Amino acid sequence: MLTLIYLIAITAEAMTGALAAGRRNMDIFGVAVIAFLTALGGGTVRDIVLGRFPIGWTQHPEYIYLVLGAGLVAIPLARHIQRLTPLFLFLDALGLVAFTVIGCDVALGMGYATPVVVMAGMITGIAGGVMRDVLCNRVPVVFRQELYASVSLVVAFAFILMVKLGVPQEVGIFTSFFVGVVLRMVALRWQLGLPVFSWQGTSH
Amino acid sequence: MLTLIYLIAITAEAMTGALAAGRRNMDIFGVAVIAFLTALGGGTVRDIVLGRFPIGWTQHPEYIYLVLGAGLVAIPLARHIQRLTPLFLFLDALGLVAFTVIGCDVALGMGYATPVVVMAGMITGIAGGVMRDVLCNRVPVVFRQELYASVSLVVAFAFILMVKLGVPQEVGIFTSFFVGVVLRMVALRWQLGLPVFSWQGTSH
Amino acid sequence: MLTLIYLIAITAEAMTGALAAGRRNMDIFGVAVIAFLTALGGGTVRDIVLGRFPIGWTQHPEYIYLVLGAGLVAIPLARHIQRLTPLFLFLDALGLVAFTVIGCDVALGMGYATPVVVMAGMITGIAGGVMRDVLCNRVPVVFRQELYASVSLVVAFAFILMVKLGVPQEVGIFTSFFVGVVLRMVALRWQLGLPVFSWQGTSH
Repeated sequence: MLTLIYLIAITAEAMTGALAAGRRNMDIFGVAVIAFLTALGGGTVRDIVLGRFPIGWTQHPEYIYLVLGAGLVAIPLARHIQRLTPLFLFLDALGLVAFTVIGCDVALGMGYATPVVVMAGMITGIAGGVMRDVLCNRVPVVFRQELYASVSLVVAFAFILMVKLGVPQEVGIFTSFFVGVVLRMVALRWQLGLPVFSWQGTSH
Repeated sequence: MLTLIYLIAITAEAMTGALAAGRRNMDIFGVAVIAFLTALGGGTVRDIVLGRFPIGWTQHPEYIYLVLGAGLVAIPLARHIQRLTPLFLFLDALGLVAFTVIGCDVALGMGYATPVVVMAGMITGIAGGVMRDVLCNRVPVVFRQELYASVSLVVAFAFILMVKLGVPQEVGIFTSFFVGVVLRMVALRWQLGLPVFSWQGTSH
Repeated sequence: MLTLIYLIAITAEAMTGALAAGRRNMDIFGVAVIAFLTALGGGTVRDIVLGRFPIGWTQHPEYIYLVLGAGLVAIPLARHIQRLTPLFLFLDALGLVAFTVIGCDVALGMGYATPVVVMAGMITGIAGGVMRDVLCNRVPVVFRQELYASVSLVVAFAFILMVKLGVPQEVGIFTSFFVGVVLRMVALRWQLGLPVFSWQGTSH
């Protein structure tokens, strides 16, 4: 079940990555790279930071085909993806939660301390989007928009808490999805964001 | 032979990195850093992604001296390098092929699956240029110009195919160079590029 | 003693990272991420490049709390931090030296060759600031301003030289701090910088 959601999520993430590349007039190779990094970059950074080799997707070549294919398919479908924005925002929310839960699970299995587990979950959830934005030469949107990273943080806390409490894993995963997706949808609907820190002073 | 081409290639890459830094008015230290990353950054990313430690250049301090020296020497020679652009484009094509072949070879030796081997070759070939462009705050040119990453892809496929077919390594390497350099030169001469995906819609 | 200076340094670095994020109107989560990367990103990159797992801060969750706390505390204090700029520049200089010495020490302990040890020191010293600037979408200031990376280089050379000469470690560390902080303060006072390489030609 989690695997199925994960596959749907990396497909959706790859497609949104492709659209971002299109806005920078990249060629189809650039589209493929951005799609790949948006979908699998977060897990790659997590595995490197945790020292977990070989990295996940290197053992699953089918993921590589899936995200590259999704990125390229997004090109002729761009107009429709745009029209389906609400669906993609929902799939993206699913993906954010799935990535976060998987990231926490990996770090827990390696015996890391709780703050590191939380960070592993968040890195998995958001680093792909950050890499997409850096390569497209813009300030990462996850640092500036409606609750996104915060959703990942809440999900990570909820999931870890339930693991520590001995809640059955299925219940923990289901609750994480319920909390995370609802929170993200509510944030999008009413444009809830974190307070912004605007600072005009000079700095080093 | 491959080693010699590799040394020429990292020297040329370091010099083009230095020129890119100069266009951003960096100080000579910045020039050295960009030169280093342009020349050795691709192999570094490849080794990290493949979990291959210690990283290549840490075992070859002479490579460090070579690329830093080349980067700094490029400063007084900038005008001449400009005039020698055709030569540098040729050296750059040699380097692209050499990096790709070496990257594939490393991943094959570690037993990775074919798609990962292809990616290892391409990462080695192009990640250095991507890092140069990100640090110089521009959208990476390898995603937007004449066939470049595509050449790396074709070379990777050709090299792996010949390895799998049991072709003698020298023949495989030579064929890869022939195909890759000719393809790149043809692309430059007639400005062949991949189709570009231009998308003006909003995206997430 | 070195640990105490290290803790002061990561606190100060986290605060300057937070101010940089504020100038990009990031939300408080973005502020926390930039604070974290500015303070601990250099050590992270060093550990990855040296193949040293688990990465330092994953074994010290208290560092995570410290830098996130410092980043968030910087928000209400931004005006005062601005007024205290000379103090922060001094703390930043302390941090630059502390990071460099620690980075060299780690690489020496792993038996790397001298040029790699120098680079490990410099990566620890400056990579955090580079990541801050890339994520804030500007050309890294360490490549363009008063002597900064050069101070790290001089400190690395001095420290390694003293280790090789068998000077007692306390003396080596103290001398490194004296040389590094004085050099950085002098550079700031008289705006000493490295020569800049300005190049308007086209490049690849």
